[in-house]
Amino acid sequence: MRVDGVSYRSVWVDQQDHRSIHIIDQTKLPWALEILRLTDCDQAAHAIRTMQVRGAPLIGAVAAYGLCLALAADPATAAMERDAALLAATRPTAVNLRWALERMLTRLRNTPASERVAVAYAEAAAIADEDAAQNEAIGEHGLPLIRQAAARHAGKTVNVLTHCNAGWLATVDWGTALAPIYKAHDAGIDLHVWVDETRPRNQGAALTAWELGRHGVKHTVVADNAGGHLMQHGMVDLAIVGTDRVTRTGDVANKIGTYLKALAAHDNAVPFWVALPSTTIDWRVSDGVAEIPIEERSQAEVTDMTGRLPDGRIATMRIAAEGSPAANPAFDVTPARLVTGLITERGRCQASAEGLRGLFPEHA
Amino acid sequence: MRVDGVSYRSVWVDQQDHRSIHIIDQTKLPWALEILRLTDCDQAAHAIRTMQVRGAPLIGAVAAYGLCLALAADPATAAMERDAALLAATRPTAVNLRWALERMLTRLRNTPASERVAVAYAEAAAIADEDAAQNEAIGEHGLPLIRQAAARHAGKTVNVLTHCNAGWLATVDWGTALAPIYKAHDAGIDLHVWVDETRPRNQGAALTAWELGRHGVKHTVVADNAGGHLMQHGMVDLAIVGTDRVTRTGDVANKIGTYLKALAAHDNAVPFWVALPSTTIDWRVSDGVAEIPIEERSQAEVTDMTGRLPDGRIATMRIAAEGSPAANPAFDVTPARLVTGLITERGRCQASAEGLRGLFPEHA
Repeated sequence: MRVDGVSYRSVWVDQQDHRSIHIIDQTKLPWALEILRLTDCDQAAHAIRTMQVRGAPLIGAVAAYGLCLALAADPATAAMERDAALLAATRPTAVNLRWALERMLTRLRNTPASERVAVAYAEAAAIADEDAAQNEAIGEHGLPLIRQAAARHAGKTVNVLTHCNAGWLATVDWGTALAPIYKAHDAGIDLHVWVDETRPRNQGAALTAWELGRHGVKHTVVADNAGGHLMQHGMVDLAIVGTDRVTRTGDVANKIGTYLKALAAHDNAVPFWVALPSTTIDWRVSDGVAEIPIEERSQAEVTDMTGRLPDGRIATMRIAAEGSPAANPAFDVTPARLVTGLITERGRCQASAEGLRGLFPEHA
Repeated sequence: MRVDGVSYRSVWVDQQDHRSIHIIDQTKLPWALEILRLTDCDQAAHAIRTMQVRGAPLIGAVAAYGLCLALAADPATAAMERDAALLAATRPTAVNLRWALERMLTRLRNTPASERVAVAYAEAAAIADEDAAQNEAIGEHGLPLIRQAAARHAGKTVNVLTHCNAGWLATVDWGTALAPIYKAHDAGIDLHVWVDETRPRNQGAALTAWELGRHGVKHTVVADNAGGHLMQHGMVDLAIVGTDRVTRTGDVANKIGTYLKALAAHDNAVPFWVALPSTTIDWRVSDGVAEIPIEERSQAEVTDMTGRLPDGRIATMRIAAEGSPAANPAFDVTPARLVTGLITERGRCQASAEGLRGLFPEHA
């Protein structure tokens, strides 16, 4: 997508050396657009672990490129398996990470060591290109939902609520939840996005608001607490969120707090849609609440906050009472019964085993 | 309650001049315990408006004392009515504010101007003392709920979740939601409190965590997004919150986000209790969502954050993307159907017209 008129992806291969990897350091947004160059596997693992890159589809692509960097250093099988395991261990919840590494390994295990580097870069590029194409398709399949909402009350703005950042920054391009929003905006539909701040890391206020603002989409940041009130008062036409892992039964793991918004949507008959490329589906898991591991992140993400001081400096400060501990579960699971439907690259379906089997019969 | 061994109330009359009013400047907590002296009605109105004092019961008491200060300057009827209206307009949602001023005016309108100052101070003191006594009674009536939870799983910690600050800082003393917690703690029950951070003003992380920490109650701060996940995983035995206004039918206006926690409690069969002195009940209102005005506060409360820098300075910084607007509804309404029950100074009852009539037959 575009930032001040320049097109970006969230990860790309250096056009000079055709080897090192560029990412946008998302921990610096919205204050600065800083490009980082990754030259080895440890840097890629560090980027994923510290959330310089985040978003389920993007961390899959960066892990794939991380394995390319690893193979450039040592293409032997033992090293390859060790580095893939290292990359897989960086984040526990998103399934795309393991999916991308499995795809790479499946291709590479039957490739002679001498050819692995070239094959790996081609496969990682395919993963990245497919992600961008799938997300654009998600945008096309989600667009009718916004169009229908616009048609229902002609002449009035369509209000979409989203949680966290499932925009182009969370993927290679387009985004998942934001892809239909970009498509609708570009199609001239009058829409406005309620952006959940998304504590504790503020990906909504920092990343989604930044993305939408740079693309010219009308939006308003709200505290995570506000969504229920907005829905009670008819101020949300539909909600669209992304996801880090969907079970074969349609349960949705996503940024902590998603479940609360789904409950409010259900209580107020607001359609609640989840947008995802099929790489996010974990076909082995049936019960999301019981089976999906939920990452517990650092207390400091809750007790401290980073922002920009009036003098322009970026600083981190304590916001909770001194001495009080914090807990920081990073995701929650929204049961399928609260999800109106899933928007995938193949179309929309019910959040259920039947719905998913219908779109993806090869997994039936 | 006690702070580092010293007993405090949240508002008191100066013991030297018997006229000026002392409050704790809650905008300075948890970083500093600063006592402010209010000497005129405008200062009292300012303290309420800028949330140097907040919490429905406390702003009622401070408004009453504000009227005392007004009368000390001009005890004439026209001035009294004007100043009461000024105080009533400082915050729109809490009903205690208007209740306290009405009580004062009812007493004062039939009092000769020359006697009004003395009568007003006596009446304001009665309001403050009654609030403290009512809240202690709320603590006694809520204590059995925690005791029962402790009995259900003997030897394990009872986990209580609360939202915002309904502690002694929000009242004259004891608090509403926290009164049963203080009573349980003092009775030796092993309990732990999940403290919702409570964006955008962080009254949970800043005030509730501070209060509980100073009193020695075990607690953990969580993002507002986390409560649903904690309940899904059996980590919350009961929720207790305060309220700014309860309708005659049991609908509950409270800090924005309360409704989301009530939905999650309902979805996970976690008891959800609301603690209040009866002064918080608005007997004229039946439909909370439709009829209770919801205060819209400044955007800056969402886009900016105050905290303590590593060098000890208190600073305010921008946390949302530059140029992105914000909305800031300060309260939401939890429908009575999601509330397990109300804890009042007269006992517990269902959140319903019948339940409230049973405890308060004089309003039937």
